[in-house]
Amino acid sequence: VKIYPEAKEASTRSDEPGNVWGFSDSGFERTAAGHVTLQGTRYALAGKALPDLWPFFLEHVGETLGGELPKPETPAVTLPRVAHPELERRLGELLGDGNVSVDSAARVRCGHGHTLDEVHALRHGGLRRIPDVVASPQSEDEVVEVVRLARELGACLVPYGGGTNVTHALLCPENETRCIIALSTRRMNRVRWIDPENRLAEIEAGAVGRHIVETLGRYGLVLGHEPDSIEFSTLGGWIATNASGMKKNRYGNIEEIVVDLRAVGSDGVISHVSALPRESIGTDVRRLFFGSEGNFGIITSAVVRVAKKPAVQQYGSFVFPDFQTGVAFLKALSADQTLPASVRLVDNLQFRLGQALKPKPSAIGRQLRTLQKTWLTLVKRFDLEQISACTIVYEGDEAEVNAQRARVTDLALDTGGIDGGAENGERGYQLTFGIAYLRDFALRHGVLAESMETTVPWTKILDVTQAVRRRVIALHQELGLPGRAFISCRISQLYSSGVCIYFYLAIDGRDLPDPCGSYAKLEHEARRAILENGGALSHHHGIGQIRKDYLPQILSEAALSWRQRTKTALDPEGVFGVGNQGLRSTRRG
Amino acid sequence: VKIYPEAKEASTRSDEPGNVWGFSDSGFERTAAGHVTLQGTRYALAGKALPDLWPFFLEHVGETLGGELPKPETPAVTLPRVAHPELERRLGELLGDGNVSVDSAARVRCGHGHTLDEVHALRHGGLRRIPDVVASPQSEDEVVEVVRLARELGACLVPYGGGTNVTHALLCPENETRCIIALSTRRMNRVRWIDPENRLAEIEAGAVGRHIVETLGRYGLVLGHEPDSIEFSTLGGWIATNASGMKKNRYGNIEEIVVDLRAVGSDGVISHVSALPRESIGTDVRRLFFGSEGNFGIITSAVVRVAKKPAVQQYGSFVFPDFQTGVAFLKALSADQTLPASVRLVDNLQFRLGQALKPKPSAIGRQLRTLQKTWLTLVKRFDLEQISACTIVYEGDEAEVNAQRARVTDLALDTGGIDGGAENGERGYQLTFGIAYLRDFALRHGVLAESMETTVPWTKILDVTQAVRRRVIALHQELGLPGRAFISCRISQLYSSGVCIYFYLAIDGRDLPDPCGSYAKLEHEARRAILENGGALSHHHGIGQIRKDYLPQILSEAALSWRQRTKTALDPEGVFGVGNQGLRSTRRG
Repeated sequence: VKIYPEAKEASTRSDEPGNVWGFSDSGFERTAAGHVTLQGTRYALAGKALPDLWPFFLEHVGETLGGELPKPETPAVTLPRVAHPELERRLGELLGDGNVSVDSAARVRCGHGHTLDEVHALRHGGLRRIPDVVASPQSEDEVVEVVRLARELGACLVPYGGGTNVTHALLCPENETRCIIALSTRRMNRVRWIDPENRLAEIEAGAVGRHIVETLGRYGLVLGHEPDSIEFSTLGGWIATNASGMKKNRYGNIEEIVVDLRAVGSDGVISHVSALPRESIGTDVRRLFFGSEGNFGIITSAVVRVAKKPAVQQYGSFVFPDFQTGVAFLKALSADQTLPASVRLVDNLQFRLGQALKPKPSAIGRQLRTLQKTWLTLVKRFDLEQISACTIVYEGDEAEVNAQRARVTDLALDTGGIDGGAENGERGYQLTFGIAYLRDFALRHGVLAESMETTVPWTKILDVTQAVRRRVIALHQELGLPGRAFISCRISQLYSSGVCIYFYLAIDGRDLPDPCGSYAKLEHEARRAILENGGALSHHHGIGQIRKDYLPQILSEAALSWRQRTKTALDPEGVFGVGNQGLRSTRRG
Repeated sequence: VKIYPEAKEASTRSDEPGNVWGFSDSGFERTAAGHVTLQGTRYALAGKALPDLWPFFLEHVGETLGGELPKPETPAVTLPRVAHPELERRLGELLGDGNVSVDSAARVRCGHGHTLDEVHALRHGGLRRIPDVVASPQSEDEVVEVVRLARELGACLVPYGGGTNVTHALLCPENETRCIIALSTRRMNRVRWIDPENRLAEIEAGAVGRHIVETLGRYGLVLGHEPDSIEFSTLGGWIATNASGMKKNRYGNIEEIVVDLRAVGSDGVISHVSALPRESIGTDVRRLFFGSEGNFGIITSAVVRVAKKPAVQQYGSFVFPDFQTGVAFLKALSADQTLPASVRLVDNLQFRLGQALKPKPSAIGRQLRTLQKTWLTLVKRFDLEQISACTIVYEGDEAEVNAQRARVTDLALDTGGIDGGAENGERGYQLTFGIAYLRDFALRHGVLAESMETTVPWTKILDVTQAVRRRVIALHQELGLPGRAFISCRISQLYSSGVCIYFYLAIDGRDLPDPCGSYAKLEHEARRAILENGGALSHHHGIGQIRKDYLPQILSEAALSWRQRTKTALDPEGVFGVGNQGLRSTRRG
């Protein structure tokens, strides 16, 4: 028997601020005392003084860092707009005037993601082409009509979900002369039905992660897809970017979670009659939408696997003398059939960032920490500047979690690790949701920071991580950039044949003539180091515009050409004009 | 450090008979005493008298079944051949004359799979169009050259792997006027390298399952992909049909096992620079080859995951009072994170077929069986004409297997099952490899038999199985066919949201004017019953030619059209002319 959850109000995203990351009531601030504090009440860390964070910045990014930079005046540049009165009028008739906007703020919102230089451009100017109209249909039928209108009137479409990409996937092609419609999926946000018997749910593409969690949770169910952006990103965006969540060991990556999907292409609805866990039915064009990044159409809904909320969720952590030993542990563990829901390993620098995010301890707390440190260094002879830490989330029924924990603990201790306790594990995961706010905080202080990720075979993990660190630091020096290059990584996903590595890179950009340009050089150097040492162009962020120039390095000529020929065959007029992955839209007229 | 296994001789397939299923030394025969025996020494069942099998046939298919039908004379029909002397000469120059054949036997071999009516046609005539030339390149470079030649000289290509499909996937389009080259991959059969550290191996597309098992086994490794055709089917065929193996719970289906693949398309090699467990790199044209059935090019090799050979392998079985209770057990079990490597459930008829395949017991054995039966019926009050049986393969280390077995046993007993012991479990799996030989045996006695499969959500299992049985039996009666329609099923794969169901259908075709035509009507009725009750068109057999006409029932118009447009864009001259899934090849000239 299917459950039909109550429809959500379309307004549930009003607490999102628009252009910077996150909720309007949350964000890091420096207090008068010099401590950093996370505002608001949403996060476990919120409201606590973090005395070690600012000193960490000074030590690892630039010792001359100071106050917040003056907020630049909103750049006076007027973004040009390709007006199309007939299109706008007919969109209004179709969707209702309130659901079609040519307002600058709405257009800007749909014209960027959260890539560093986009966020920088929002403060300092630099966006060059943004959508001309924002249309927000509420149903697949309306999407079909919007696509038809765009074709008829010579406009093009860019889908907009949560806007959380970090790949320039929403940057409009600068030379696009057609009217660009940003098709926002925000009103297509319902969990249509839940089928607990078959462990399935149909969800509209514009539903954001936190709302999906909340709705399924009411019925004791979980989706289990938990990308770091889960609070703001959408189901449609997860599919379009081929996303991965931190609990993929238990629940799978997005391509395993989605059992069926519907999308609107240039010539109608792409759909199958049923949602079945596995089929062999020849060329399955639904697969084209995984990683499609707007090139092939608008994803409107998907049927996904759901699971019973696990009876038990526990955290754990282990400390290893160094990163290499931690990797050896992960490799041994990955042979296991039943990995904990999430297993991560942070390098020394990120371990220390985690420590720097600890609230000010009580006097007893301070003594305890000193004791722990003494034990680590004097008894276990771990070097605090070498240790790395593994954090774990166990989920399942009690017997399952106990068995897993016992096996994992045995293996960790055998490999030379020591138990770091549940609390440290939990803090590791809290960091996940803080990190994007931290980036905004850093940016306000002139520090440029961004993440990048890759997939790497087991035997190349050390090559890749060492090459990235070495080459970023060398180039930072060569370019004569101020302060220190902050470069740190964590392993965030395990596979049978390798891992996902997540890098963070930060520099002091205050006095640079072209801060984003300098940052991009370092990022490019890091990406080259990754590719030259056998890493993937991307594990889950995707290609967008930011990585399209690397594609010829990883694809054969015929494979490159097949992508474009498929695009041209399925969207001959280029109505889906986003241009991600370098796929050209053939213009008509 | 990679291992480079010794190259296999190209001749290792000489023990395969060519046109009927299996090894030349194996096959069921009726002895003078009327018992059925499996010849040869390859299988556990071989050489033992099976006294109950023939009576089972009489009871469930037709009580008038008698001796083997006289072997019909080889049909005198000469299959026409589109000769192309220049092409043949240049293929010979390219590959060596020994690797290019226009011999009838070789052409016939590549012109059929193992679908019922193909095997029937081999005995009774009826093949209409077979390949004109068989070419056997040994390397990807040679494949590129063969494709180039075909394009230059206006020929078309059909890939040939193990020839085990049951979907008419190798039937040549009757109206194809071009010279058809069967490109046999049999000489591309090496395991190129094994990388135990990263748990990967690169294997050529023409390697057959049993050779892969043997080669990896030498290094203590397994692939874990075990389709019922594993003895004869190839890696390339598994990818092209989107295959599934019985141990997919532990090792994954083919799309999860293959980490990277290479293929030759109409305009060159489709390849990526690295084999990584997971990527988000936009439109990934490698995915097109899963389920491609020859439409897009020739798969030449793949990098696959391998795993350590499990320390422990054990069988298990449970008997349930009826199929429905067995299904309830599977459904509860499928919520588990760590399913045994294989879990199957057979219906009552297949349970009884399994019993009929038991060798003649000793006197003590006979008494034991009687005791068991008495206990089942009198103590447990199970109805022998209702019970169904679940067979299980456990794999892993000892602790893992013990824990799994304990959990599975608890759940089975809780659901109303009783332990059936390891021996019955093992016999269930032996049946797997016997079944195709049994089909040939049946055919020699005038009985037509074939399998078909589907995927079904949990809540529709009983609807689908009951509708198929009811409607096949009703149509069998309506058509006035002799004997009884044998229709039986097993659940062979579990997923979170449903299962794969495997049906067997058999009829007495001795006196029918068009036996395959009558059979096709019943199969069509079964397929309609499946589709109307929410089942998939195919779980792992694929579409080929046999199911292409159903595609418009399961795909939207745009999805249907996208398939053809992709085909035409990527193979504009239709050099891959197999025509599976109804995809047309645009001819040139």
